[in-house]
Amino acid sequence: MLKPFLDDCFLLDTPTAQRLYYEYAAGMPIIDYHNHLHPGQIAHNYQFANITEAWLSVDHYKWRAMRANGIAEQFITGNSSDEDKFLHWATTVPHTLRNPLFHWTHLELQRYFGITTLLNQDTATQLYQQCNHLLQQDDYRVHGLLKKMNVQLLCTTDDPVDTLENHLWIQQQQVPVKVLPAFRPDKAIDVSDATAFNKYLGLLEAAAGIAITTFDQYVAALQQRHHYFAQAGCIISDHGLEYLPVADFTEAEIQAYFLRLRMGKQLSFTEQQQFKSCMLLLLAEWNYEKNWVQQFHLGPLRNTNSRLQKLLGADAGTDSMGDFLHAHPLSVFLNKLDSKGKLAKTILYNSNPSDNEVFATMAGNFNDGSMPGKIQWGSAWWFLDQKDGIEKQLNTLSNTGLISRFIGMLTDSRSFLSFPRHEYFRRILCNVLGAEMEKGLLPNDIKWIGNMVKDICYNNTKNYLNC
Amino acid sequence: MLKPFLDDCFLLDTPTAQRLYYEYAAGMPIIDYHNHLHPGQIAHNYQFANITEAWLSVDHYKWRAMRANGIAEQFITGNSSDEDKFLHWATTVPHTLRNPLFHWTHLELQRYFGITTLLNQDTATQLYQQCNHLLQQDDYRVHGLLKKMNVQLLCTTDDPVDTLENHLWIQQQQVPVKVLPAFRPDKAIDVSDATAFNKYLGLLEAAAGIAITTFDQYVAALQQRHHYFAQAGCIISDHGLEYLPVADFTEAEIQAYFLRLRMGKQLSFTEQQQFKSCMLLLLAEWNYEKNWVQQFHLGPLRNTNSRLQKLLGADAGTDSMGDFLHAHPLSVFLNKLDSKGKLAKTILYNSNPSDNEVFATMAGNFNDGSMPGKIQWGSAWWFLDQKDGIEKQLNTLSNTGLISRFIGMLTDSRSFLSFPRHEYFRRILCNVLGAEMEKGLLPNDIKWIGNMVKDICYNNTKNYLNC
Amino acid sequence: MLKPFLDDCFLLDTPTAQRLYYEYAAGMPIIDYHNHLHPGQIAHNYQFANITEAWLSVDHYKWRAMRANGIAEQFITGNSSDEDKFLHWATTVPHTLRNPLFHWTHLELQRYFGITTLLNQDTATQLYQQCNHLLQQDDYRVHGLLKKMNVQLLCTTDDPVDTLENHLWIQQQQVPVKVLPAFRPDKAIDVSDATAFNKYLGLLEAAAGIAITTFDQYVAALQQRHHYFAQAGCIISDHGLEYLPVADFTEAEIQAYFLRLRMGKQLSFTEQQQFKSCMLLLLAEWNYEKNWVQQFHLGPLRNTNSRLQKLLGADAGTDSMGDFLHAHPLSVFLNKLDSKGKLAKTILYNSNPSDNEVFATMAGNFNDGSMPGKIQWGSAWWFLDQKDGIEKQLNTLSNTGLISRFIGMLTDSRSFLSFPRHEYFRRILCNVLGAEMEKGLLPNDIKWIGNMVKDICYNNTKNYLNC
Repeated sequence: MLKPFLDDCFLLDTPTAQRLYYEYAAGMPIIDYHNHLHPGQIAHNYQFANITEAWLSVDHYKWRAMRANGIAEQFITGNSSDEDKFLHWATTVPHTLRNPLFHWTHLELQRYFGITTLLNQDTATQLYQQCNHLLQQDDYRVHGLLKKMNVQLLCTTDDPVDTLENHLWIQQQQVPVKVLPAFRPDKAIDVSDATAFNKYLGLLEAAAGIAITTFDQYVAALQQRHHYFAQAGCIISDHGLEYLPVADFTEAEIQAYFLRLRMGKQLSFTEQQQFKSCMLLLLAEWNYEKNWVQQFHLGPLRNTNSRLQKLLGADAGTDSMGDFLHAHPLSVFLNKLDSKGKLAKTILYNSNPSDNEVFATMAGNFNDGSMPGKIQWGSAWWFLDQKDGIEKQLNTLSNTGLISRFIGMLTDSRSFLSFPRHEYFRRILCNVLGAEMEKGLLPNDIKWIGNMVKDICYNNTKNYLNC
Repeated sequence: MLKPFLDDCFLLDTPTAQRLYYEYAAGMPIIDYHNHLHPGQIAHNYQFANITEAWLSVDHYKWRAMRANGIAEQFITGNSSDEDKFLHWATTVPHTLRNPLFHWTHLELQRYFGITTLLNQDTATQLYQQCNHLLQQDDYRVHGLLKKMNVQLLCTTDDPVDTLENHLWIQQQQVPVKVLPAFRPDKAIDVSDATAFNKYLGLLEAAAGIAITTFDQYVAALQQRHHYFAQAGCIISDHGLEYLPVADFTEAEIQAYFLRLRMGKQLSFTEQQQFKSCMLLLLAEWNYEKNWVQQFHLGPLRNTNSRLQKLLGADAGTDSMGDFLHAHPLSVFLNKLDSKGKLAKTILYNSNPSDNEVFATMAGNFNDGSMPGKIQWGSAWWFLDQKDGIEKQLNTLSNTGLISRFIGMLTDSRSFLSFPRHEYFRRILCNVLGAEMEKGLLPNDIKWIGNMVKDICYNNTKNYLNC
Repeated sequence: MLKPFLDDCFLLDTPTAQRLYYEYAAGMPIIDYHNHLHPGQIAHNYQFANITEAWLSVDHYKWRAMRANGIAEQFITGNSSDEDKFLHWATTVPHTLRNPLFHWTHLELQRYFGITTLLNQDTATQLYQQCNHLLQQDDYRVHGLLKKMNVQLLCTTDDPVDTLENHLWIQQQQVPVKVLPAFRPDKAIDVSDATAFNKYLGLLEAAAGIAITTFDQYVAALQQRHHYFAQAGCIISDHGLEYLPVADFTEAEIQAYFLRLRMGKQLSFTEQQQFKSCMLLLLAEWNYEKNWVQQFHLGPLRNTNSRLQKLLGADAGTDSMGDFLHAHPLSVFLNKLDSKGKLAKTILYNSNPSDNEVFATMAGNFNDGSMPGKIQWGSAWWFLDQKDGIEKQLNTLSNTGLISRFIGMLTDSRSFLSFPRHEYFRRILCNVLGAEMEKGLLPNDIKWIGNMVKDICYNNTKNYLNC
């Protein structure tokens, strides 16, 4: 007997999995502690012109799929009409079978728009109109979309030089969701290009109101922003890096490097590593002092395709997984902070699943007994945010750590239509646990396991973020 | 209820999987676009003396298994009789349980010889006679073996200095299968040993009819062979490398290196890398200009055992997986070609499954929308060409790319009895898809999924190769 | 229908798996050829003061779990009472769901103590008393614990300078289990710290009765210990390393390095690598000459947490997996020995599962036909010693080698209560094979497969160790 596609039992293969999901997981609110949503669109309760804007304008997952399907760039990111772009996406969707895009697309159609028709070339025009019609309604503005998904708290991703004006505006208004900024200083410590760095320092001077000539002034300005973010409610920081640089350095060296940078001179690769190593330790100490959570997203090889980078800039869908070596740098970095008693709550994310076990076991080395699950190995990320990837993360985490203390899912998305990914994760989690209960691998105690599900979906995160 | 071993439902666990296989996959012809079959044996419709010659004379998989089973080299590659060698293989077979050899062996016995008896010490003599008897028949010559398996097209693997006389002979005859050469210039650019390289240049001079003193003459001679292969119908090239070298170089450097090589002087490791980097880019551009497909088989650590290499040469069954780092060189190489608008259709194969995700996502960075699935992550290769390896490749490909555009299976084999591996692959593919249809993870639309199966088994390859 | 937790069918999902386990696996004795049990506790038939001592005093797996659960160090390794420590462990146990600790803990409670109650905060006091009561009985001394588990032979892990007095004492007594020492010369060749090395040489001088001034004397003293161990019945050696060093060296260099070390001078990193490379080859030749088995445990990154190392020393539960590159050094090391005809029976263990395939295929390169399964890829180790890890090891071993020749499980444990891990392994093995028999992937011949199970659980090991 074939089960229907994407029905109530979607991803829930056993009766116990279904009970766990519907009796425990489904009702929990969402805390989406890391994403790339535009705070301005939340502040102004943005209304999307059409489903193309909502779905395709910033989603590099879909762009990659369309390119792989032989669609010309013009119909993906180019200047063809929104309807044309949608049509090309629609013709691509049937070709995404077994890719998470296929599940996500139809889950989003169901959950936001009540549409159970499959999207393809034949249904494209009808579904385009149907979605666009709904998107004109008031409860399909950004606030409505978030409310539909029971989002309670979300953290965006913001640069230190951001004025946070959108966040401040949100806080003064009747927004149905709590929205907080997150501190992501990637550009502030990227010294690979002296010109770009100096340009950034100009923005930092303006934001902090501090003239920057010396390294100490630079640090003071950056710390001023750190304080400013904290005052605006920030409780979490984030770093996106290929790997954690952990070169040895002296303060004198770093100060000298800064002066050279400020004169527009390029640092050598080794000097750049030293500079970044210094700054990451400093930032991590600030995070500790403010009791923030710090996140490290490690491992991708970005912007591999120069042609598309010239055309579209970063995040053009030409990033892939790297195979950097992480064990040594991770251990040195975390140990330096732990030795000083300044290791903040930390979440480590890896891009390449071959690093799963290194990351999972590394987290376990630095739990210090001060709180449950202090060092977290983060949820399956980016390319791994799909059934296989999530299951592997849950299994490796279970086998080498404590899944009961896991803070669970986040979307990391640029789209307001991505929140069903929490449902996706929860169904997979319940399915894994349900199967093991039925096999006698877990105790037959649905309340106990169900409460663990609730913890992973919501309670652990709430406690961890102290929010 | 135990299912019988290797019956009609072999590897097909669900009714839907069985329907997909028998209604869609089973009838598709085979395009085996990469193998190491001997073109001379096809040209002359070779008749094997016995099953030992057909099975054991070139199959290093079997050699490894026999060594692991404690069989002395004399009975594997040594000078004992063919019957003795078969007997030692037969005693090894029961010890290969769960190794793909156990499935392959019995699948080959069934499909070619109609034998369902299991091979072991007790049945060895009887099966030896039974197989040898059939191998004497006319339809068990090479052409007959290919016809039995419904092979439509196969591409061998040929050195640039090859005269292709066998291929030309095949094309002039009534061969029931289309046979094309493939261009594999590994030796032509291997400058790790100046003496061997100069010896090779002698062969290249003779083949191209060009005296080679300078780098430009070397390039001209090699390009002459590239043209020659194209005239002989070649549509695909192949490279076997530990990793893709991508060192920076100037033309002047390479020209100077060539002159030093020509004087019998050894290049340093770095200079070798530069030379190879130069040549690979050049060859890749030629592939683009001819609209060939280019294949890169990356990652093995070859000839690890000096003792057996002295005894048997290369391909002695002492190769294993390497753990080279591929992400950076792959991205640099593909980007250089893409930036110039000269990136040919490309298939990337990895040896180590820990690299699966790096290869799968890298392919996705360089699809340019010019055709569906331009950059392919190739089928599970070598040690990975078994149920687990194939399933992992299908799953990772699905999760990070478009399985619907996949060009599927090839044997990469040295044996004319290996073609049931296409059946093996197809059954696994249908089993994976059937299970997901039954669970409601895929739409309940057998025609749609079935057509995708047909595409992966045959149509995609035909379109991709333009053959 | 939910199966009860941890009943007779635990981990045995099919009737065939159950038959394989109960008719073939369950009755086989245990050969535990690698562990860290204290020979003194065996010699003196030690009686544990209470379950805290038996379970928690040396088990860094449990320590990690407690730290991850937010338990303060005082209640883990600190000076709180044994009962308090047990209570904190008990409150942690429900949070270890899906971690192997949860299964191991309740399996040990059942098998040694007949307790089927789940351990948690509520049952802690009662179970503490129940276990302690039993531990006071005579058949719960060390000999009784080993007898209960049907242990036939165990090999401890001993330093070359050890007098082996406990082993000699054991051999003179009525101990119900055969106990042999194993030669682990990690400290004897660790020249990373000249002071520590010289201190060790003092112990070596005393143990061997040889004054050590020159490299040759050092080698002579070490070889004297190798002989001494052999006389005491040793048949197996072991090395714990991040990776196998394979630097080139000359004897003159090594002799000079030794003199410098002896003068208290530090070697450079490269010199250390050369020294270690030299010594490992030498030790491996001795192992060959004595027909010992040699084990290499490769890959962990140890003592990452300075704070806990200062507090507790090594093995404090702050080791994680490394991501060292192993393929090249493994192949060079094994090839050097094979080329000289001096490669002993060898077992290779990897810490990081991303290296599974490299290790599995490397082993296959150096089987020389002299005996079945001469080069073994060892059982899933450390963090991988759980259901997923064991299944992956069994599957990769099967796919790339001969599982029929596998020598199976060992505990590697510091605890006398860890022997149910052999049962755990056997159940998983039978489950994997049973499932494939039921699916028709293996022949429906329970005697054949059952005998393979017996071989993997016991016979292969007995033959391999020649014991």
